[in-house]
Amino acid sequence: MARDPWMHVNVVESPSRGRSTLVLSIAGSDSVGGAGIQADLKTFAAHGCYGTSALTALTAQNTMGVQGIHRCPSEFVAKQINSVLDDLDVRAIKTGMLYDAETAKTVVDTLKSCFSPSGIPPLVCDPVCVSTSGHTLLHEDALEILMSELFPLSTLITPNKAEAELLLSKMGPEFLIGSLDDMLTAAERLISVGCKAVLLKGGHITARMEDVFATQTKSPDVKVNKQNLPGENMEILLVGSPNYDTLDLVVDVLYQRDGQKTMFVRPRIESSSTHGTGCTLSSAIAAQLAKGTPLEAAVEKAVLYTNAGIQTAFLIGKGHGPLNHFHNLRDSFIPRTREIWKEYVEHDFVRQLGKGTLDRACFVHFVRQDYLYLKYYARAYGLLAAKSTSFVLIESSTQTILNVLHEIGNHKAFCAKFGVTADELENTPESAATTAYGAYILDTGLQGDTTKLLMALMACLLGYGEVGLWLKKQAASPNSWVVLDGNPYQHWIDDYAGEIYQAAVRIGLETIESCAEADPPSEARLSDWTKVWARCTRLEKGFWDMAMQLGE
Amino acid sequence: MARDPWMHVNVVESPSRGRSTLVLSIAGSDSVGGAGIQADLKTFAAHGCYGTSALTALTAQNTMGVQGIHRCPSEFVAKQINSVLDDLDVRAIKTGMLYDAETAKTVVDTLKSCFSPSGIPPLVCDPVCVSTSGHTLLHEDALEILMSELFPLSTLITPNKAEAELLLSKMGPEFLIGSLDDMLTAAERLISVGCKAVLLKGGHITARMEDVFATQTKSPDVKVNKQNLPGENMEILLVGSPNYDTLDLVVDVLYQRDGQKTMFVRPRIESSSTHGTGCTLSSAIAAQLAKGTPLEAAVEKAVLYTNAGIQTAFLIGKGHGPLNHFHNLRDSFIPRTREIWKEYVEHDFVRQLGKGTLDRACFVHFVRQDYLYLKYYARAYGLLAAKSTSFVLIESSTQTILNVLHEIGNHKAFCAKFGVTADELENTPESAATTAYGAYILDTGLQGDTTKLLMALMACLLGYGEVGLWLKKQAASPNSWVVLDGNPYQHWIDDYAGEIYQAAVRIGLETIESCAEADPPSEARLSDWTKVWARCTRLEKGFWDMAMQLGE
Repeated sequence: MARDPWMHVNVVESPSRGRSTLVLSIAGSDSVGGAGIQADLKTFAAHGCYGTSALTALTAQNTMGVQGIHRCPSEFVAKQINSVLDDLDVRAIKTGMLYDAETAKTVVDTLKSCFSPSGIPPLVCDPVCVSTSGHTLLHEDALEILMSELFPLSTLITPNKAEAELLLSKMGPEFLIGSLDDMLTAAERLISVGCKAVLLKGGHITARMEDVFATQTKSPDVKVNKQNLPGENMEILLVGSPNYDTLDLVVDVLYQRDGQKTMFVRPRIESSSTHGTGCTLSSAIAAQLAKGTPLEAAVEKAVLYTNAGIQTAFLIGKGHGPLNHFHNLRDSFIPRTREIWKEYVEHDFVRQLGKGTLDRACFVHFVRQDYLYLKYYARAYGLLAAKSTSFVLIESSTQTILNVLHEIGNHKAFCAKFGVTADELENTPESAATTAYGAYILDTGLQGDTTKLLMALMACLLGYGEVGLWLKKQAASPNSWVVLDGNPYQHWIDDYAGEIYQAAVRIGLETIESCAEADPPSEARLSDWTKVWARCTRLEKGFWDMAMQLGE
Repeated sequence: MARDPWMHVNVVESPSRGRSTLVLSIAGSDSVGGAGIQADLKTFAAHGCYGTSALTALTAQNTMGVQGIHRCPSEFVAKQINSVLDDLDVRAIKTGMLYDAETAKTVVDTLKSCFSPSGIPPLVCDPVCVSTSGHTLLHEDALEILMSELFPLSTLITPNKAEAELLLSKMGPEFLIGSLDDMLTAAERLISVGCKAVLLKGGHITARMEDVFATQTKSPDVKVNKQNLPGENMEILLVGSPNYDTLDLVVDVLYQRDGQKTMFVRPRIESSSTHGTGCTLSSAIAAQLAKGTPLEAAVEKAVLYTNAGIQTAFLIGKGHGPLNHFHNLRDSFIPRTREIWKEYVEHDFVRQLGKGTLDRACFVHFVRQDYLYLKYYARAYGLLAAKSTSFVLIESSTQTILNVLHEIGNHKAFCAKFGVTADELENTPESAATTAYGAYILDTGLQGDTTKLLMALMACLLGYGEVGLWLKKQAASPNSWVVLDGNPYQHWIDDYAGEIYQAAVRIGLETIESCAEADPPSEARLSDWTKVWARCTRLEKGFWDMAMQLGE
């Protein structure tokens, strides 16, 4: 391409330039644009893939139902597939609505004619049978073709409860899926049909965490994937929601031919914006597989993408509206730091503090270093105020400085109680862990914009809130190891679990959310935030290591 | 929607939430995904609109050509349109391939049955007749329906040369379009068919700037829109390209029923990635109209979007590949600052400098203030180095500081020549305009990230380069008002027009480009950059005002 004068200022090249990943959808058309190839193409695009399509049937439909279906001649279905595959290097294929036996057979034969048996790219088969509104999208006579010919070519099939029950009815006596155990049984039976893996979707079965544990007790070889749950020690994120243990969950079961079984657990979302959920999920998996993501990770990411699409859907139409395929979610940043976050929140320092057994010298050392750290922290909010472009942020930064000044009052009082004078406190030699953490935050503020600085400040704010909540929760369980009565550190626990501190946490979260909403981060920026978050969590953990070792 | 625990960390809500703009495409399907409803849906999505579709015909095609067409029954076309319009509040409609007379008639009748004559939303009719590869996409008998029934409903029709010639052949004797003048004539005739406006696309006619001027001389009522050209005083952006005046251009002609005529001028791009260009342009215009953009601005933005799609296309397929619909271009920032940029570059200070008539006292005042400004400027690069996370940026920032130190050597030499001692220079009282500009750059660096700071620094770097080039170019034209020989300021002009300075400009542009590529800006961020750029340009102009007035 000639270097064009525009290039300099107007055009930011796509990072995917020159290396686009191609995906093919063989499915129906949805006039309202939320399901079928429309959902697939939108989903491929949202994953940075280039989408192609072969139409099997057209539907005239809207959010209230299906008003009509027009079948494409099967030879024309073959023609479309051939046009795409003759020309392009497709990295994954997704099949959706195949309508009838003749079409299904044509799709199978065409794919077989285009690829050698081992040369077929990852194939995700969504056995679409009935629309959400109850319209038949697959004639019964096609089921046998799917099972005997298409499934054996498939990397993954993605039936929901009704589709799985229908498929199973062709294999033996009626089997109704009512529980997680039933799901495992059903998936095991379905895999015998010959596909490499089954993802049995659990959207129509409500479960609780106790059900997941019960199933795992019965079948210890089943892995539980909770990456799409807020996670342990993330109670802080459950603001306004019921307790984590009593949350309604959706569990999807992935059963692989090598015997690996995984339950994907996620919170249930109540929404009417579910038109095309199945199409979206299967095409998101296909896009992930096209990009080389391993199957389990592909499912995990696709579920996250689909759920975010439901959560951020705009309400359109009079019935079940479509998802938002173009939300700004590219990745989540906290889950990646899960292990280090747990090491931090459940640190031995915290446990001993909860038991009341923490060495007094360690606690005093901690408070003195925290006093020094809070000077950096207050300065960082000063820097945030200096970097602000709105009075709102100037005010909230300033308010936080005032809160810190209140907090150091507590530190002084603690120290006085433990025999450390104000002068000794002020002249405490600074530990390297304190300098590392404090200076890191200020350096982050110097380097980046206000959001990056906020991200560094949040790990600290949220972490202490989480520790407070975790100890309070442990204390509330029967025969708890946490002792509040007579615990010399009870005041500290009360402070961080208390409403004033938790309210500050909520404001912090809302600030970050609104920043990200006003200026949606690129992939590079999100990855940068993740690094900042992980780094701060590690520095927090290092701070408690230092306290336990009375480190310099 | 229930507040979900995920919301806090994982999901960044789309800014379009709750207020999505709906667009309907009535067109064919392209299996390879670069034209037809596939291009339309991708384009709508890229504009933040929600896309719906009614299929008129399916094509089996790839980048090498069309292998087959399957016509949808016209009653099913009507059904799809009704499904969408019965349920959704569509804000614009685009029609593409309508295939034959019966389909075209059905589309017209269905639209008329859904809307009152005055209630139809903006309708963009792309009279698709023949594919790039020469396949007939519209039967000849449909032309009359288009002209007599669909065009009168249309806000805009978007024929290319071949389509316009075909349409004109139905209205009278053959008329071949070979020049800009012919385009104006053809557009004038086409508008008589009854649409509100004609956009006659000029992709098949090559023009030069002199042709545009010649046409404008003949028809002074024709407006020339050059927003998509680098523009006057933007020679600095033409790095590696031929001279601006000898650039091959594409001119699109917009003819509105009220008599307004506009020629949209843009550089021609040589590319094989042009599959679906027409579909993309017309759906981009529809998306803009749906969002309420006035027609001329809608065309201007859609042309920019489409061209960027060609420029950033990845090469797929063996023939004419598709555009990249999801480049990161959301808006361009320099065109918006066009007027202030011109005031700055063509400032009276610059003109007098070129003539050699600039008052010596003004120039000395300028150099002394610039000396003080350069201290801020060098410090800003020091801050950039401090904010850097890579040695590459640390090195380039440092190198720039060294260049500035070299530049102040010139300032000292100038001053000495004009009788100002080193001591006097160093103790020059600082003008407010100098403080404003210098401190603004440092403040921008404190507030934002490295890219924002770079943006502030670029206006200065590019501006002086542009002034140098502009004066050199003026000097080269016959009977120029610029006098280089014996001009007391020739050294200054030579410095900024010279290769060393221009090389620095190129490096600056490349740095900005690579930053934006690595971390594509959101709309909010791009708008922020525009503000910084405009502000700096204004401060630069203020600097020269100050110099002319010997201001304090």
